[in-house]
Amino acid sequence: MRKESRLIRWIWRIVFVTVFLLLGFIIGWFAKPTTNTTNQIPSSKYLREFLDEMQKFTRLPHLAGTEQNLRYAEQIRKEWLEFGVDSVEMVPYDVLLSYPNKSQPNYISIVDQLGSEVFNTSLAEPVPAGYEDVSNIVPPYSAFSAKGQPEGDLVYVNYGRTEDFFQLEREMKINVTGKIVIVRYGKIFRGNKVKNAMLAGAKGIIMFSDPADYWAAGVQPYPDGWNLPGGGAQRGNVLNLNGAGDPLTPGYPAKEYTYRFSLEDAVGLPKIPVHPIGFHDAIHLLKNMGGPIPPNNWKGALNVSYKIGPGFTDDFRSQKVRMNIHTNNQVTRIYNVIGRIRGALEPGWRPRRTLIFASWDAEEFGLQGSTEWAEDNAKLLQERAVAYINADSAMEGMYTLRVDCTPSLHTLVYDLTKQIASPEEGEEGVSLYDSWHKRDNWTNDRDAPRINKLGSGSDFEAYFIRLGIAAGRARYTKNKITERYSSYPVYHSVYETFEIVEKFYDPSFKRLQAVAQVRAGLIFLLADSLLLPLDVNQYADSLGKYAQSITQLAQRHPEEMKMYDVSFDSLFSAVENFTIAARDFHERLQTLNREDPLQVRATNDQLMYLERAFIDPLGLPGRPFYRHVIFAPSSHNKYAGESFPGIYDALFDIKNSADPEKAWEEVKRQISIAAFTVHSAAMTLTPPA
Amino acid sequence: MRKESRLIRWIWRIVFVTVFLLLGFIIGWFAKPTTNTTNQIPSSKYLREFLDEMQKFTRLPHLAGTEQNLRYAEQIRKEWLEFGVDSVEMVPYDVLLSYPNKSQPNYISIVDQLGSEVFNTSLAEPVPAGYEDVSNIVPPYSAFSAKGQPEGDLVYVNYGRTEDFFQLEREMKINVTGKIVIVRYGKIFRGNKVKNAMLAGAKGIIMFSDPADYWAAGVQPYPDGWNLPGGGAQRGNVLNLNGAGDPLTPGYPAKEYTYRFSLEDAVGLPKIPVHPIGFHDAIHLLKNMGGPIPPNNWKGALNVSYKIGPGFTDDFRSQKVRMNIHTNNQVTRIYNVIGRIRGALEPGWRPRRTLIFASWDAEEFGLQGSTEWAEDNAKLLQERAVAYINADSAMEGMYTLRVDCTPSLHTLVYDLTKQIASPEEGEEGVSLYDSWHKRDNWTNDRDAPRINKLGSGSDFEAYFIRLGIAAGRARYTKNKITERYSSYPVYHSVYETFEIVEKFYDPSFKRLQAVAQVRAGLIFLLADSLLLPLDVNQYADSLGKYAQSITQLAQRHPEEMKMYDVSFDSLFSAVENFTIAARDFHERLQTLNREDPLQVRATNDQLMYLERAFIDPLGLPGRPFYRHVIFAPSSHNKYAGESFPGIYDALFDIKNSADPEKAWEEVKRQISIAAFTVHSAAMTLTPPA
Repeated sequence: MRKESRLIRWIWRIVFVTVFLLLGFIIGWFAKPTTNTTNQIPSSKYLREFLDEMQKFTRLPHLAGTEQNLRYAEQIRKEWLEFGVDSVEMVPYDVLLSYPNKSQPNYISIVDQLGSEVFNTSLAEPVPAGYEDVSNIVPPYSAFSAKGQPEGDLVYVNYGRTEDFFQLEREMKINVTGKIVIVRYGKIFRGNKVKNAMLAGAKGIIMFSDPADYWAAGVQPYPDGWNLPGGGAQRGNVLNLNGAGDPLTPGYPAKEYTYRFSLEDAVGLPKIPVHPIGFHDAIHLLKNMGGPIPPNNWKGALNVSYKIGPGFTDDFRSQKVRMNIHTNNQVTRIYNVIGRIRGALEPGWRPRRTLIFASWDAEEFGLQGSTEWAEDNAKLLQERAVAYINADSAMEGMYTLRVDCTPSLHTLVYDLTKQIASPEEGEEGVSLYDSWHKRDNWTNDRDAPRINKLGSGSDFEAYFIRLGIAAGRARYTKNKITERYSSYPVYHSVYETFEIVEKFYDPSFKRLQAVAQVRAGLIFLLADSLLLPLDVNQYADSLGKYAQSITQLAQRHPEEMKMYDVSFDSLFSAVENFTIAARDFHERLQTLNREDPLQVRATNDQLMYLERAFIDPLGLPGRPFYRHVIFAPSSHNKYAGESFPGIYDALFDIKNSADPEKAWEEVKRQISIAAFTVHSAAMTLTPPA
Repeated sequence: MRKESRLIRWIWRIVFVTVFLLLGFIIGWFAKPTTNTTNQIPSSKYLREFLDEMQKFTRLPHLAGTEQNLRYAEQIRKEWLEFGVDSVEMVPYDVLLSYPNKSQPNYISIVDQLGSEVFNTSLAEPVPAGYEDVSNIVPPYSAFSAKGQPEGDLVYVNYGRTEDFFQLEREMKINVTGKIVIVRYGKIFRGNKVKNAMLAGAKGIIMFSDPADYWAAGVQPYPDGWNLPGGGAQRGNVLNLNGAGDPLTPGYPAKEYTYRFSLEDAVGLPKIPVHPIGFHDAIHLLKNMGGPIPPNNWKGALNVSYKIGPGFTDDFRSQKVRMNIHTNNQVTRIYNVIGRIRGALEPGWRPRRTLIFASWDAEEFGLQGSTEWAEDNAKLLQERAVAYINADSAMEGMYTLRVDCTPSLHTLVYDLTKQIASPEEGEEGVSLYDSWHKRDNWTNDRDAPRINKLGSGSDFEAYFIRLGIAAGRARYTKNKITERYSSYPVYHSVYETFEIVEKFYDPSFKRLQAVAQVRAGLIFLLADSLLLPLDVNQYADSLGKYAQSITQLAQRHPEEMKMYDVSFDSLFSAVENFTIAARDFHERLQTLNREDPLQVRATNDQLMYLERAFIDPLGLPGRPFYRHVIFAPSSHNKYAGESFPGIYDALFDIKNSADPEKAWEEVKRQISIAAFTVHSAAMTLTPPA
């Protein structure tokens, strides 16, 4: 989870809180099992010490691949050893990273007809108080942007989603070929916006944070509140990796002997310049735009018209926009820190199974540290890994718990959160489960706290979507009904500070503690239970719901379904088969002889390998590293986890296809693959003999 | 192993002998373990009964997909149940097969300038004595040939290997575009010949059996000896499946709900007509050929000049050759028969591990029965399969034993054959190991019987090359030094009869018994040993030899290796790493507590998964279903097993490439993948904790 630069420094702290608390939690849990919902707050002395350490730890910029980042990695290693982790190693990979050119800053200009720059965007964000003396603060940039200085007319393309470009091209009849597009952040992963812009023919893309998407109502901009200041901009990579990890070594770890593709053959690099700006700068680019008035849902919250273009109004017709992008791609050494607590029965307590702690390098450059290590250790992980619990950002709001996980972990999450205290003021004696349930009930027909599907955009990706290891993540979140901004306002800006957490998000640090307890509790129970706490019936139940929901999506085209003879019967039949196999499996669990180590082992193997059974070695169409047939992001937004993603994407393409018969054939093929995969998974639940 | 038609009927018998003796062997072995090399010959009464049953069983043609074949499958099911197999099921798939058109026979003509057929090839082989009353004998044809009646000049292309076409095009400057090529059988898989002809632009291909390749010296043609008669022709499919199984459902089992590609999108179907003939017919096509005199190694043993063409000599210049091919592709139901002996401790003896017996349908149509079942059960097999022992043709000669297997089985094969008696006359009291060793010593530097690498062309393919399950096969073979013909003379002709075995190959049936003992012994020891009898050190040893040998192949290009900076260091370093891991693994075996079921199980899991560790989910270049990085056929001959096939193919392409730098880059990439895979496999040998 290690990230670059101080810009997201507090995430760092929270990660460390997690690791620290996880260890404390495991030891505490073991020493004194609790069945009450007591809240174990670390004594304020230790808490202060810990938070001071965190503040020191994250004060300096530490972009992946820089010397400061290596120093921090070494410090993590040292501290883990002091905490009592059996062994800790630094595992290096040489991956493609991307840095701004220090002598040629990136910016965007408005130029007049003589070519003079009449407006330039800012080169950096205003530094928050307390950080004025910090050097090497990384300016906002789009990692892996192509270099270049394209000049031309702007076109505003809303969020840059597939549907936005459809609307632009089909309804507004605006062609962006050879234009520079300006797009607001939000709704989908920025890399998808860049890909869509490239496919539409744009020669550059500018991304800005609109207050409509990055301001919470009634909240002040930082430092007086937690909204994004107008000078703040969102960094982040703009790759389309689809799980490949290092763009030069797809499928293989980026080690010394590994063959590297040339940059031309690299995976997922954008071919056009890309740059992010804040809304103060965006106003200057947008205010004189000409062209048609936009539809209402294209309008943000700035005091401009949001006209589409191309280009400026008549008065400013002669002015063009020029991007000046000098960002460099560079093969760079990164370091994961890998700690192990060996499982087995030895003097002193040990978990039943081995625990591995990983501090992933270069997450923000495309999940590179975690993916390369997954590639490096793929065979071992496939054979032996029980589960992966992710610890990225622990907080994106202050409302309630958010859990995204595979269905087999649902029951464990519920059982565990009933044992943890609510961190909310005025909820003494209330469990986290009840606090969460009250705030985010699943649906009208399911009375339990909502659990989400895993998407992508964090380090669990290779473990879950490529290798098929049961996975989950937990954090604190906002109220999705009332807080409609994307992510959280200061996301990936310089204003993600320790102080924003301390002052606004979690002054008592109790919410972060609750998150740490969820993460550590999951890990502890997965590592130490005699029988793996995975629930196959829950998977069956979820598969049934997903089959219903994907069928409903298809039924928006009733005539075509009839014309092309599209049926979901085989999928429902497979789900039925799986449901019966799951029920039988759990019935056999009742009579399992827990004293027989071979019986227990065989059963645990089946539980461990269940998630593996949903992996198709052939991958999803065009995405060889996304291999999970039940869960993957859609091709149109890396952040959103879709169920039956193969079918989902095939249905998505129906709208766009010039050959509907072929498009529906692909839907049928994907239904058949889904049915086969669910049948295969059911087979793995049969008795081991 | 079930095959079509009576043409290879005796293989059938031997398969059945194997199954029968396997059961007897297991029971016998268990009842009375023997450490001497006693020869357990079934009493002559039972032998006769058994052979009579076999003769009945295989008398009638039973092409895959026909009613007679289903009847035999049902009989197998019935008999297995009688033998005491716990459960036997018929497992159907609907796959693409290919049949001659009954009302429009296939043949080849020489036509004069008026279009009259002045010569036609025979429509069937002369039926051997004793089979005159059998109906539905399938005429020789090339399964999956395209339909068509191409007419044109002939070009003789020797064996139709990649190097033959190079020589033709580069040295002889003969272009076969729009021509019909005539090729002799032998050296490589016929499907590779067809692919090469297509790539060269031919519009049809005729394949004939030359006595140079299908006659043993001093042997009479059948029925007076075991050589191929001039009227005999070699059947067989001409697909280029590369492990895909059913051409319409690559990667997925051909079940009712499975999506089927159209014939245009099918895998591996030839696009041109193909037909096989015997040498009596070939003489008519070859005798008037014009064009250049061939090099000596292009000449066969017929009394013709083997001139290359194109077309006939001046006197016959106006005559052309026309192919008349009406073979149909058809989706057809096939049936595997799957029997199980459940493992576990129960009253009465049972093996420690479950045994599955499989009678594969449609082997000759592209390994379809075995591949579809592998696809159907892939997840279970990956999780649980210890080993696969193939039982195809048990005899291709009368000289000594032949074993092809994965290196980890070498030691077991040696240990076992020391316990089995030699079947050779005058070798009473000599072990099969010694008899074999005397006849086929490995090399000057290795004093042990030769064991071969697995190639393809039989049903182990999907289990070994796609799924990574340790595999082996055994049969009796010829003397490769003195007997230079391809395969065995009557291969795939109507003359593969019960009588050819009884009269010539194995009158006492002792050789077949020895083969059955090897197969059954391997299965018994794999199923019932506490620790899996797999030898990791042998794998290390073999990897070292393969690395040496592929390096030598590359060193034929010393200048390019220098120019493009090609090094095998990373591969040798990986092999060294694997060798150390193997040695440590075997050392830990010495101190393993065999009373601790969890320790034994964890160790067996490592042994079982070792072969799996050599699988690359991304597959070999362009061959997604050939995934074994250490063993696969080369792209140029399906029959030949190559070590490090990715590197081998990349080196093969060096000669052919228009862009040597790119070709060497591919060599380097493949070396890197091989090194990574060997490192990964080494990792799986680390202690389970």
